[in-house]
Amino acid sequence: MDLIVQKFGGTSLSDEQSRRHVLRHINRELEAGTHLVVVVSAMGRSGEPYATDSLLELARLNGDALPQRERDLLLSCGEIISATLLCSLLCAEGIAAVALTGGQAGIFTDGRYGSARITEIKTERLNMHLSEGKVVIVAGFQGMTPDGEATTLGRGGSDTSATALGAALNARIVDIYTDVDGILTADPRWVNDARPLSAVSYEEICNMAQNGAKVIHPRAVEIAMKAGIPVRVRSTFSDGEGTLVTHAQVLRTQGIWFDKTVTGLAHVRGVTQLAVINRDGPADVQLRVFRAMASHGISVDFINVMPTGVHYTVLANDSQTAIGLLRELGFEPTVRDGCAKVSVIGGGMNGEPGVMAVIVEALTNAGIPILQSADSNTTIWVLISEHQLAEALQSLHTAFGLHLTPAREI
Amino acid sequence: MDLIVQKFGGTSLSDEQSRRHVLRHINRELEAGTHLVVVVSAMGRSGEPYATDSLLELARLNGDALPQRERDLLLSCGEIISATLLCSLLCAEGIAAVALTGGQAGIFTDGRYGSARITEIKTERLNMHLSEGKVVIVAGFQGMTPDGEATTLGRGGSDTSATALGAALNARIVDIYTDVDGILTADPRWVNDARPLSAVSYEEICNMAQNGAKVIHPRAVEIAMKAGIPVRVRSTFSDGEGTLVTHAQVLRTQGIWFDKTVTGLAHVRGVTQLAVINRDGPADVQLRVFRAMASHGISVDFINVMPTGVHYTVLANDSQTAIGLLRELGFEPTVRDGCAKVSVIGGGMNGEPGVMAVIVEALTNAGIPILQSADSNTTIWVLISEHQLAEALQSLHTAFGLHLTPAREI
Repeated sequence: MDLIVQKFGGTSLSDEQSRRHVLRHINRELEAGTHLVVVVSAMGRSGEPYATDSLLELARLNGDALPQRERDLLLSCGEIISATLLCSLLCAEGIAAVALTGGQAGIFTDGRYGSARITEIKTERLNMHLSEGKVVIVAGFQGMTPDGEATTLGRGGSDTSATALGAALNARIVDIYTDVDGILTADPRWVNDARPLSAVSYEEICNMAQNGAKVIHPRAVEIAMKAGIPVRVRSTFSDGEGTLVTHAQVLRTQGIWFDKTVTGLAHVRGVTQLAVINRDGPADVQLRVFRAMASHGISVDFINVMPTGVHYTVLANDSQTAIGLLRELGFEPTVRDGCAKVSVIGGGMNGEPGVMAVIVEALTNAGIPILQSADSNTTIWVLISEHQLAEALQSLHTAFGLHLTPAREI
Repeated sequence: MDLIVQKFGGTSLSDEQSRRHVLRHINRELEAGTHLVVVVSAMGRSGEPYATDSLLELARLNGDALPQRERDLLLSCGEIISATLLCSLLCAEGIAAVALTGGQAGIFTDGRYGSARITEIKTERLNMHLSEGKVVIVAGFQGMTPDGEATTLGRGGSDTSATALGAALNARIVDIYTDVDGILTADPRWVNDARPLSAVSYEEICNMAQNGAKVIHPRAVEIAMKAGIPVRVRSTFSDGEGTLVTHAQVLRTQGIWFDKTVTGLAHVRGVTQLAVINRDGPADVQLRVFRAMASHGISVDFINVMPTGVHYTVLANDSQTAIGLLRELGFEPTVRDGCAKVSVIGGGMNGEPGVMAVIVEALTNAGIPILQSADSNTTIWVLISEHQLAEALQSLHTAFGLHLTPAREI
């Protein structure tokens, strides 16, 4: 059975014009004889009545009293409403369709409300409806425990529903429809000659997502990667093919891998750098500081342990708590607010010694001090002042020739 | 286990002040040591985003294309949202509570979407939560098929959920909270000295509901009646005890039965009387006319078969269709638009020969012609001109002394 999973985000369903685009993508695949599973998010933008945020606002009418179980039950209604709406749209066009909750679609999860993990997908019912020739619409972002409790999958949950269904049904591809044309070499709000990428590897897109690019949730990518199901990130509002995401090796074999050292840039704003001077030996500093951060749920990044002490960064939201904790421990940290993290990502940079040299040269020429750096096989991170972010992104984008990414229709 | 089922309608949850009243009723019972199952309808009034009507409007964005199965799935979200909202309200007050869908509450139905019948209630989970000391909130109006499909119970569905749960759990009483003070002797918009009733029998309230009084759905009453569970219809906005509904015999035994021949009045407006002259023998007329009506789903009432032909009534909405059908059959009906049906209801009128005499006298004195009449053991119906409805109701109300119904706090 030739099968595709399509996922449409909430904005794709919130007005008549967008719904027409959704219908076009569905019809195109049906006309090609493809079987379809369509995953939908909750409707609309923040503030619209059936959006997830509006349901959450309802939940917060009484403070944060709503138990997690009931919060998930409430939120799951958002996607169910979307699914039935799309079903009515298809049926009105004479397209046979069925709308299923996550549980009805056989998506079983553990009981971690708010961020449940998919444990199993029972595909009997999906296959039954597919063999009846129906488009199977599945409410995204949700599953069910074996006890019949509604659960939600947390951030990026509908992407996860889509790739997990794709993996379970051995789909030819999972198309993630969104409001952008695909994955770009950098955020176009910051880099005006950012270019669309025809293909990236699973690892690269995970790096981009983990480093602040709003693309597709890493958990969703991980599931696709394990099953080897290709994913496309593409626009609801055009017929471009978007960005193909698959194994680097597949891209190389198919000759659609550009074999560049650097594929794209990502960034995170609102970072605070904290420096603590070592007094009682590095192990002690490290242990006490990071234990305190962990016990308060503060994510740390750019950890740089030196004989003289330790540097690390936290998100600006957490900085006051972090500083307070350090003072309780008897440390007086040096605080540098207003930093940004720039990530230079490329599956091809592994072992290429020149990449860091290009970064240092580009930023130095632009008069941008590097406050800290870190690197892995496929990513180099630099910490800079946030007020120099636009210049830093632009100069790195140019230095790596990302503006020369081949033009293509996507 | 001393257990009460409370049911709150949509208007009881749609604003902060109403929710405070709901909380008061719940707290009062909890303080008395009573276990509680609380059934809720969808929030709000027509036009509010989470009201049933608003969800239906969403469903109708694409005409009437939405299949019944998906329509039920969509509508069921309205009550689930209400249930979680009430759960957050209780939890914020430190009251342990759990919100369940109809299916999770063990309410199983057949697969007649839109008007499913309850086939079984599995009480294990309800009993488990009750024994944990939790208030169990159940989304009304819905159930689940054994296959896990969400179903809705049709009109009056939340009342049905409440009485069915009351019957399954052997509740001491089912309290139906609404925006009126209980059941009145007549509609107060038409009869200004209408009085609240302290008690009515199951049969009487069924007659009232079937004859146009907006009280509680007959199906809900029937379930309570079979199980012998008393029901109270009472106001969310006061502490009055409302109207007790139970077996006539129980009311008599407890001395709270007023032993009146007539308990109350109900009415239906917008009725059209059709008269067909018999040509080919009465059986033929009857058969052909009523078959045609039935095959088009037109409800008929006040059927009066005579040697000369047949009189009957239809609702004004159906009258054009009915007239068309009669003409197709070769009949030219006499049509009287603008009629109203008045029902005089009383469990004590059985065998009392004087009741019809009082009706005829009252209406004759008021100059109101009786266009047609019918009667059963517990109800007499008269058809009159709708423009004389107010006068007719008022004169009957006075003639039967209903304005003298004992004053009481309800």
